Amino acid sequence: MKPNQLPAWQAAQLLASRELSAVTLMRACLDRIAEREAEVHAFVHLDADAALAQARALDAGPWRGPLHGLPLGVKDLFDTADLPTGYGSPVYTGHRPAADAAAVALCREAGALLPGKTVSTEFAYFHPGATCNPRNLGHTPGGSSSGSAAAVADGMLPLALGTQTAASIIRPAAYCGIVGYKPTHGRVSRGGVKSLSETLDTVGALARSVRDVALLGSVLTGDRRLIGELAHPLASPAPRIGLCPTPDWPQADADVQAAWASAVQTLAPCAASLRDAPWPAALPDLVALQKRVMAHEMARALSHERVHHRARLSDRLNDLFDEGMGIGGEQHAADLASTTAARALADAWFGEIDVLLAPSTTGEAPQGIGATGDPLFSRGWTLLGLPCVHLPFAQSRNGLPVGLQLVGRAGDDRRLLAAAQWCWERLAP
Amino acid sequence: MKPNQLPAWQAAQLLASRELSAVTLMRACLDRIAEREAEVHAFVHLDADAALAQARALDAGPWRGPLHGLPLGVKDLFDTADLPTGYGSPVYTGHRPAADAAAVALCREAGALLPGKTVSTEFAYFHPGATCNPRNLGHTPGGSSSGSAAAVADGMLPLALGTQTAASIIRPAAYCGIVGYKPTHGRVSRGGVKSLSETLDTVGALARSVRDVALLGSVLTGDRRLIGELAHPLASPAPRIGLCPTPDWPQADADVQAAWASAVQTLAPCAASLRDAPWPAALPDLVALQKRVMAHEMARALSHERVHHRARLSDRLNDLFDEGMGIGGEQHAADLASTTAARALADAWFGEIDVLLAPSTTGEAPQGIGATGDPLFSRGWTLLGLPCVHLPFAQSRNGLPVGLQLVGRAGDDRRLLAAAQWCWERLAP
Repeated sequence: MKPNQLPAWQAAQLLASRELSAVTLMRACLDRIAEREAEVHAFVHLDADAALAQARALDAGPWRGPLHGLPLGVKDLFDTADLPTGYGSPVYTGHRPAADAAAVALCREAGALLPGKTVSTEFAYFHPGATCNPRNLGHTPGGSSSGSAAAVADGMLPLALGTQTAASIIRPAAYCGIVGYKPTHGRVSRGGVKSLSETLDTVGALARSVRDVALLGSVLTGDRRLIGELAHPLASPAPRIGLCPTPDWPQADADVQAAWASAVQTLAPCAASLRDAPWPAALPDLVALQKRVMAHEMARALSHERVHHRARLSDRLNDLFDEGMGIGGEQHAADLASTTAARALADAWFGEIDVLLAPSTTGEAPQGIGATGDPLFSRGWTLLGLPCVHLPFAQSRNGLPVGLQLVGRAGDDRRLLAAAQWCWERLAP
Repeated sequence: MKPNQLPAWQAAQLLASRELSAVTLMRACLDRIAEREAEVHAFVHLDADAALAQARALDAGPWRGPLHGLPLGVKDLFDTADLPTGYGSPVYTGHRPAADAAAVALCREAGALLPGKTVSTEFAYFHPGATCNPRNLGHTPGGSSSGSAAAVADGMLPLALGTQTAASIIRPAAYCGIVGYKPTHGRVSRGGVKSLSETLDTVGALARSVRDVALLGSVLTGDRRLIGELAHPLASPAPRIGLCPTPDWPQADADVQAAWASAVQTLAPCAASLRDAPWPAALPDLVALQKRVMAHEMARALSHERVHHRARLSDRLNDLFDEGMGIGGEQHAADLASTTAARALADAWFGEIDVLLAPSTTGEAPQGIGATGDPLFSRGWTLLGLPCVHLPFAQSRNGLPVGLQLVGRAGDDRRLLAAAQWCWERLAP
């Protein structure tokens, strides 16, 4: 296996024991990028020389931490002190922040190296960048963490940072066929990440295995149990799984339905329990609620851009701003109260189950790169602030990746990741 | 009354009817600043010429919004595109952000004018700036919104923005004898505010009356009810008040105890109800919990500064970082779970009462400007995310301001501000 194709956790072990050098790994990643970037367009900025220089310096020094020597893709929504940061918008072309975002600084402190910044949609909303799906260049990689997902899926990088406000980690992970991990809302610092929504924005991880997203997650949260308990996965107990196709299940196409049936068939005999987790009748329409909260909060969080740069924003974003400014603070106060109540209700789901199994997307990555697909199946979970992991284990009739997500109890990312590892070993052995 | 001494809501009416020009008001504020700034040191940056030019432009154009022509103090923790932004640290001297913070952009959109940036303690933690208490220059103004509180208290400005992570709005308001309003956590965008703590950071308002903080709050939240219902205050119903001296009451000195006794005596005969609100026995030690959450989250949110600029940070901040990095993510996950549970418990307080009456500080502003006083009495409310209003209505034996705070139900800022107005009319008629 070429070094750039190694799982991050395995590369990390080889880097720690000096069986693999940071330079060798970085070179392998840069070679893959050189080979494919002209078609995939995962990067908005790349500095190969600086990355190699940093790898050389790392090889010459002591072990730095759990991400020592791992090339990390960073979505261009995160501030970086030494790489331009454009937030996916021409308004910020060439912008140079004064500091690294907190998540970036934590990863660098743990030894990660940044070869560049990956493509984000415009302010992580719907207007896409140039990235193509590496599994089929005629299809969208999903968004908004488009470049991070594409680079990881294509073997350009072992790990990447993303953010989710509607579906921006889970959806591109699903479309590109990799693992995406959205932690519990509020658990990872958003300092230095362009702010869109207090209620929704969440920093997370993209990689090619559950252990890899857990490794990155353990650095982001400082919680070593996230990865520690996956070291001996076969020892972890079988999870209690709740089946939660959600009220939007009729929107799932035949590919997702086939993946669902296959997962249920595989997991039912070995799970500690696997049964329906009925949708609480008292829950409001989470999709409509998430849309209103997102519109109101984005229109206000991006007030500087809304007021001063309207002509340089996409029509889609200006439409969202108009919609959001039309939602008064009175309605928003009620929406936040509904969100708090819904989060309390959702917690009750997890009394007798460990994780919910739910759809990630309505289907495979849609054709064309003019849109990033439907965020439908993640809006509700993001609003509820619950941790989610996308597992890629199936193929559509067109041969594109399909999978499902597991949803954990708020704050119990540890159990979610352990269950995700357990399920994934059985679904994609 | 000189224009700079007018309540903001009254100045706003005169500005709207063009009975008062923005230039006249700005000049009056700048005159007061010129007279007093050499002693008070409320500003870290001031641009009188630019402020007057903006006032002139505003006077020549149409009415812009509810803050039309009001000079606004902005704590130097908020990004501003046209004024340097230092976050209270020499690390960022001369830093020029690319955009206004969301709160700043919203205020400017509503017509506010920024003559400068007000002093913050170092990254809004405990290491103080040069600001003195305008009521007695030998005493601290409190922190971390030191300059915002001092400028408003001294009549330099009618309104200012602050932030609170422990006690940074309520405490300086109390020490300087003005009204401080910390909204419900999560209700006002923190976009472009230097991030310290996901769980605690809250944007809020400082002014000389309840109506004034409500006016600014209505712009920050987009909720016009916050100010609308105060327009006819005598019509608002008497509130049900719960007395909540908190478990730390023994730390309140004789001045605060006297203010408490006086408030209870004044309000008891006219409140709809006024009775003890017993501290829920199931609540954890909120002060200890707030300290741990703040240390862990600040050490990670400020990772870039912690890793790269240790030598330019105060010992106090480096000590906090060491403490915070010593609190693992495992402990923090448990602390966040405790916080969520405590927030749910606190909500039950508000079944039969509208607001809690609680101490704001342990006493008057302490002597000296080497420290900013004890945040004790606000740590718990900040952790719970509850909206708070400080009411200045009493004097210490030394003639310095003393007061109490009202605490509202999460999300019910409207009722809190109405109750605060009602109480304040009776406490400081």
